Amino acid sequence: MRLTRQTNYAIRMLMYCATNGGRLSRVGEIAAAYQVSDLFLFKILQPLVEAGFVETVRGRNGGIRLKRDASTITLREVVTVTEENFALAECFETGAQDCPLVDSCSLNAALRAALDAFLGVLGAHTIESLVHDKSFMRRRLGLADPAELAVAV
Amino acid sequence: MRLTRQTNYAIRMLMYCATNGGRLSRVGEIAAAYQVSDLFLFKILQPLVEAGFVETVRGRNGGIRLKRDASTITLREVVTVTEENFALAECFETGAQDCPLVDSCSLNAALRAALDAFLGVLGAHTIESLVHDKSFMRRRLGLADPAELAVAV
Repeated sequence: MRLTRQTNYAIRMLMYCATNGGRLSRVGEIAAAYQVSDLFLFKILQPLVEAGFVETVRGRNGGIRLKRDASTITLREVVTVTEENFALAECFETGAQDCPLVDSCSLNAALRAALDAFLGVLGAHTIESLVHDKSFMRRRLGLADPAELAVAV
Repeated sequence: MRLTRQTNYAIRMLMYCATNGGRLSRVGEIAAAYQVSDLFLFKILQPLVEAGFVETVRGRNGGIRLKRDASTITLREVVTVTEENFALAECFETGAQDCPLVDSCSLNAALRAALDAFLGVLGAHTIESLVHDKSFMRRRLGLADPAELAVAV
């Protein structure tokens, strides 16, 4: 049982943007921080923009940033956008007309209850709660401290 | 996010055996009931025997049956045996030495909490609870009613 790599890095991109505050981040710098390819992150970016989590600013000084406050974006919302489906068993999708238990399967009911519990916990975590220690996150992601930026100006 | 097909049918095999009471079931008849191949179920059987859920009786009138009471076998136990791993993200496994967040990742902590909730619900369901309506299950799986078998003798 595993989440897709897309989901994993979608959340990490949002964490990066949240750590970087309202400043624009370049996809290239996020890819460098996580040591993945730019192309991979560009593919993931598209659904995040469509879902309204992220906005892009074009141009030489462009980049991406969160479109919504990080404290309003739950992990449940993100995985719902990025996971292809939550069919824990193939018969969730097809209706499994071959299975004699179809329509009345106690196993499916149990799996659905377990999935609800899983998503319930993800619904209680937000992108903001994942990056609440901003100074720690900035250090780890190699992002400059806004206070230092202010001094430099 | 999906459980393996092996897990799905491992649970269904155990449900079949539980419905069939202490009587021996042939893998071929279980495969026919679920419309899957015998070979597929034989592969799944091995870890179920090793884990002590099922015992096999060889010979012409042989077959398989539960080795433990169905009410003591939780879905959590079964998926723990049959799922290759519960690494929701690849970095659960590898230690993700490339990721700057390794060792202190709030995302992994959130995913682990969600997984715990998922497994917690599965721990509250047993094979017996999935087949508690034995008469319904027998009808759906094409198994004879023990009372009718007694009359026939």
